[in-house]
Amino acid sequence: MLKIGILGCGRIGQVHARSIRNLDDARLIAVADAVAPAAEALAAKTGAQVRTSDEIIASHDIDAVVIGTPTDTHYDLIHGAIAAGKAIFCEKPVDMSADRIRDCAKAVGAAGVPFLTGFNRRFDPGFADIEARIREGEIGEVEIVTILSRDPSPPPLSYIRSSGGLFRDMMIHDFDMARFLLAEDPVQVFAVGSALVDPEIGKAGDVDTAAVTLTTASGRICQISNSRRATYGYDQRVEVHGARGLLRAENHLENSVEVATGAGFRRAPAQNFFLERYEAAYLAEMRHFVEAVLSGKSPKPGIEDGLRAQMLADAAAMSLKTGLPVRP
Amino acid sequence: MLKIGILGCGRIGQVHARSIRNLDDARLIAVADAVAPAAEALAAKTGAQVRTSDEIIASHDIDAVVIGTPTDTHYDLIHGAIAAGKAIFCEKPVDMSADRIRDCAKAVGAAGVPFLTGFNRRFDPGFADIEARIREGEIGEVEIVTILSRDPSPPPLSYIRSSGGLFRDMMIHDFDMARFLLAEDPVQVFAVGSALVDPEIGKAGDVDTAAVTLTTASGRICQISNSRRATYGYDQRVEVHGARGLLRAENHLENSVEVATGAGFRRAPAQNFFLERYEAAYLAEMRHFVEAVLSGKSPKPGIEDGLRAQMLADAAAMSLKTGLPVRP
Amino acid sequence: MLKIGILGCGRIGQVHARSIRNLDDARLIAVADAVAPAAEALAAKTGAQVRTSDEIIASHDIDAVVIGTPTDTHYDLIHGAIAAGKAIFCEKPVDMSADRIRDCAKAVGAAGVPFLTGFNRRFDPGFADIEARIREGEIGEVEIVTILSRDPSPPPLSYIRSSGGLFRDMMIHDFDMARFLLAEDPVQVFAVGSALVDPEIGKAGDVDTAAVTLTTASGRICQISNSRRATYGYDQRVEVHGARGLLRAENHLENSVEVATGAGFRRAPAQNFFLERYEAAYLAEMRHFVEAVLSGKSPKPGIEDGLRAQMLADAAAMSLKTGLPVRP
Amino acid sequence: MLKIGILGCGRIGQVHARSIRNLDDARLIAVADAVAPAAEALAAKTGAQVRTSDEIIASHDIDAVVIGTPTDTHYDLIHGAIAAGKAIFCEKPVDMSADRIRDCAKAVGAAGVPFLTGFNRRFDPGFADIEARIREGEIGEVEIVTILSRDPSPPPLSYIRSSGGLFRDMMIHDFDMARFLLAEDPVQVFAVGSALVDPEIGKAGDVDTAAVTLTTASGRICQISNSRRATYGYDQRVEVHGARGLLRAENHLENSVEVATGAGFRRAPAQNFFLERYEAAYLAEMRHFVEAVLSGKSPKPGIEDGLRAQMLADAAAMSLKTGLPVRP
Repeated sequence: MLKIGILGCGRIGQVHARSIRNLDDARLIAVADAVAPAAEALAAKTGAQVRTSDEIIASHDIDAVVIGTPTDTHYDLIHGAIAAGKAIFCEKPVDMSADRIRDCAKAVGAAGVPFLTGFNRRFDPGFADIEARIREGEIGEVEIVTILSRDPSPPPLSYIRSSGGLFRDMMIHDFDMARFLLAEDPVQVFAVGSALVDPEIGKAGDVDTAAVTLTTASGRICQISNSRRATYGYDQRVEVHGARGLLRAENHLENSVEVATGAGFRRAPAQNFFLERYEAAYLAEMRHFVEAVLSGKSPKPGIEDGLRAQMLADAAAMSLKTGLPVRP
Repeated sequence: MLKIGILGCGRIGQVHARSIRNLDDARLIAVADAVAPAAEALAAKTGAQVRTSDEIIASHDIDAVVIGTPTDTHYDLIHGAIAAGKAIFCEKPVDMSADRIRDCAKAVGAAGVPFLTGFNRRFDPGFADIEARIREGEIGEVEIVTILSRDPSPPPLSYIRSSGGLFRDMMIHDFDMARFLLAEDPVQVFAVGSALVDPEIGKAGDVDTAAVTLTTASGRICQISNSRRATYGYDQRVEVHGARGLLRAENHLENSVEVATGAGFRRAPAQNFFLERYEAAYLAEMRHFVEAVLSGKSPKPGIEDGLRAQMLADAAAMSLKTGLPVRP
Repeated sequence: MLKIGILGCGRIGQVHARSIRNLDDARLIAVADAVAPAAEALAAKTGAQVRTSDEIIASHDIDAVVIGTPTDTHYDLIHGAIAAGKAIFCEKPVDMSADRIRDCAKAVGAAGVPFLTGFNRRFDPGFADIEARIREGEIGEVEIVTILSRDPSPPPLSYIRSSGGLFRDMMIHDFDMARFLLAEDPVQVFAVGSALVDPEIGKAGDVDTAAVTLTTASGRICQISNSRRATYGYDQRVEVHGARGLLRAENHLENSVEVATGAGFRRAPAQNFFLERYEAAYLAEMRHFVEAVLSGKSPKPGIEDGLRAQMLADAAAMSLKTGLPVRP
Repeated sequence: MLKIGILGCGRIGQVHARSIRNLDDARLIAVADAVAPAAEALAAKTGAQVRTSDEIIASHDIDAVVIGTPTDTHYDLIHGAIAAGKAIFCEKPVDMSADRIRDCAKAVGAAGVPFLTGFNRRFDPGFADIEARIREGEIGEVEIVTILSRDPSPPPLSYIRSSGGLFRDMMIHDFDMARFLLAEDPVQVFAVGSALVDPEIGKAGDVDTAAVTLTTASGRICQISNSRRATYGYDQRVEVHGARGLLRAENHLENSVEVATGAGFRRAPAQNFFLERYEAAYLAEMRHFVEAVLSGKSPKPGIEDGLRAQMLADAAAMSLKTGLPVRP
């Protein structure tokens, strides 16, 4: 039984609490949030106690912490948790600065504590199945990876201004997915982007429509495209072209109904909300973390994966700025 | 090279002319129609001569006749063509009366002339593929066949009054398909039906919505349903459940485009017109006829198949009338 | 907050316990099972207490009971729960005998206690969406309903011998679905069936492959087919043809991945297990029950629906036996 | 009636002959080929005469020429046909050199003869439907175009050595498609590529796996990827993401059959051969050419479109060589 404390009771903290509730070998002991009513509400719903973050990190009845607080607090919480010997499940991005992630990675490595970076999409049943089939050689050598991600609608401008930009906030998931599926680290990043959805996003110095090309040393290619808008739901598709075949994961629609009329055959829109779309992934992610920690294995993706994705995002931002391909 | 004469230059005669034009080993020599301008128009388009039906049947430069005239003329034309030793491609139904078909079948058998009954759907690439897979044992023993056919809209009432009714006019194709896929002749027919599309059809003594259950001696089951109306195009689906798997053929849509909006993911309607939907089937049907005749083999489906389908239609009509299962 | 006791801690009792755990306005207070370790295991997992069935029914801290015990115990438990004024969620079938269900229905009506018959499929997001669209008139008047259900593999012969036969054990769900979608009670039932999957099932007096045709007073038609075997997973499809369009619900596949090779494009098999396939339906069913009871409304489907489905199953069994259409 | 001569009786000349045979307002008068038996065979099949190219260009009974000869002969034939006042249907690429195409374009413009560049894919029913919907504003402003093309297998090395390379030989179609769908000319081209399918292709100085990013002045983005190999057939997909929705065209499968077994649900491979895949497109292309010429309109795509696509291919080749984005 893994005893867990949740730091941060916002949307993502609540998701993880629900996952823990559905696992037989994990128990949520305590929750913390800078906003007291948020912690109290989650505690009431789950039967967990309310403690401060420091108290949770120091608690002897807690084995692992789930860090879902604002990004700029991660660094200190990670170091605190390392010092207390806790297993760590940290939401992405680990930090806005690759240097500071590198610093954390060193400390994690030195202390040998289990660390999972919250790239939940690796645990999506479809994407995980694709990776497993690649690993088993079902389509031979990977040659071209295509990733299409579109959010239903852009976040508020206030969020965009502090998010680090599309590459670090949104495409970061796709960079991790690219590494997951290419099975080889990209050596070159080329990015283009525009503000087509909302000119205000452009004025804020960001783009809302972007495309990136990654290449690896052995010549594999990955194309990623992002848009901050999709009228038909949360669009999340991946495909991998290999020497012996193609693997692709289609969108998750709201239901399996098809309506046929004179206008044609219509199926439901894609599931619109990331918590719904990735519900199974979040549960599988927490299950993996709990099982890894309980069995003494390293959870995956680790902090190194968090660092590598951030480096690709930094390189993409630099490529967009300079108009040139960049080595990450 | 098979030299062909077409009897009847209406819609279906024109289809067969186009098929012949696309075959390298067939040539259309002459066409006939009771309505002179119809024959002249088709002749002008194809370069064929205009002759009378009798002349075509008597022509020494013609090997085979395609009979696409009104049903009540088939009987005499078939006997004439048999007497002249022509190979015969006859549109379905061979005749409205099973007894008269039986009579034709005897004459065909005695003369040994090649005879194909125009059940074009057997030549649809999808349905033909299903039948081939069944024959090769891909899904093991056939257990349940499900056939769903819906026409885009009902024919004129004048046609319905003389058509012999839904079972003989429309479901006849499905009865042949059932025999094709069950690979065993049904021993019981149970039919239900209503006039839901147009009460006038009910007043004319027919139904426009119907369902039939066929069973074979070994216990295989086939369910067929028909409607005279489908807002989303010409609905033509078949599926076969076997001991080791399922085979199904989906509708042919107008194109392969999908439009995604807030309303969901929409593909085109089904091809709306039977000539378009079965264009490939008509070509394959004519190719089969030409190849069979040229190589001295019996084309399939033969006149016996035309008879058996008619017997099932008669049994369904009787079942609807009596409310009881009927032995065909 | 609805306080619930579960009677019967087998597979289905465990499903309902999990649903309750995921609802904010319901709490599982106690569980009972004739087999003590089963009750203890579920209690340990959920934090509920172990009590006897009689104790649960008599408990003042419990508002509602979920009956998931063997069918032959339902009658007494229902009457006990009615006497205690508990809201009742009873698994299907309510009883093997339509007369005894009628008897329960009278008692439920007289006492005015809320009663839900566990036809979980009505709560499947796809099937529920179809029913809602029909009700809102999206496809006009319903004309033909087609229901295809195939189980992955037959249950043990011992179960078949005591199950009441395919129509009462398996197709009962489809009879309820037919009523749900036809929005009109069938007035005629015609059934055919064979033992094609396993001759032992035939020797046990049952069929494993069956097809039923239902007709309503207004002329609507429903075709149902069942098989006890499907190599490709749990096959659960429904479609409704209406005057203005078609609605259909496709199978739920294990994931959304497509693999393309020289053999073609392959997607995953259908979810194989009914608990997985209907997980969302079970949760929605319990949510509906809890919300209905808390807000003083009658849950739906009620005991009358349980009775009507049983009457259709009885009629189908009679039709199979006599070879004739039967009035339910 | 448009009277046509075909120059070049190879594979593509034969395709166009078949298209002409299926059009009521066009007639194939004569065919020419440097290899006499090729011309004779096509003449025999179609009833056309055999003439030399020069004779066809000079023929008074011929209105239009279809140029399907080797690329290096196009330039002279085009100038000859212009001088003779013939309408011209020229296969792509018009020439290997953009300068020489520019030269032809000037001559075509000066003479005012109708000219169609053979980008057949614009006439594919799916792609044409997408372009029409974009034009009608169905998805709002175009933002991201994604084009995935994979050939079933690489051409012989001898062909690759003389083809001008993947960008000029294969991706040229995608460059034209990008222009067709972006409705705006790209201002920047960035290309990456590798020889992953066959190292011999790399030794020959070409790539077999490539990805290109195009951007337009208004910020629209197009991603294209190509592979010379696809085990699952001829992979031809296009999608367009716009402000109000998404349009995509899926592959054409060999038939509409789905086989379900324990391995899942399998559909047929994609049509494997470009003549089969684009059969409808070739017919529509010829129909458009004939109708445009007969009605005095300019066929589209014209020679300017042939030039622009070639310029994008040249820019992509330059980008691959230099590693930098290039202005076309």
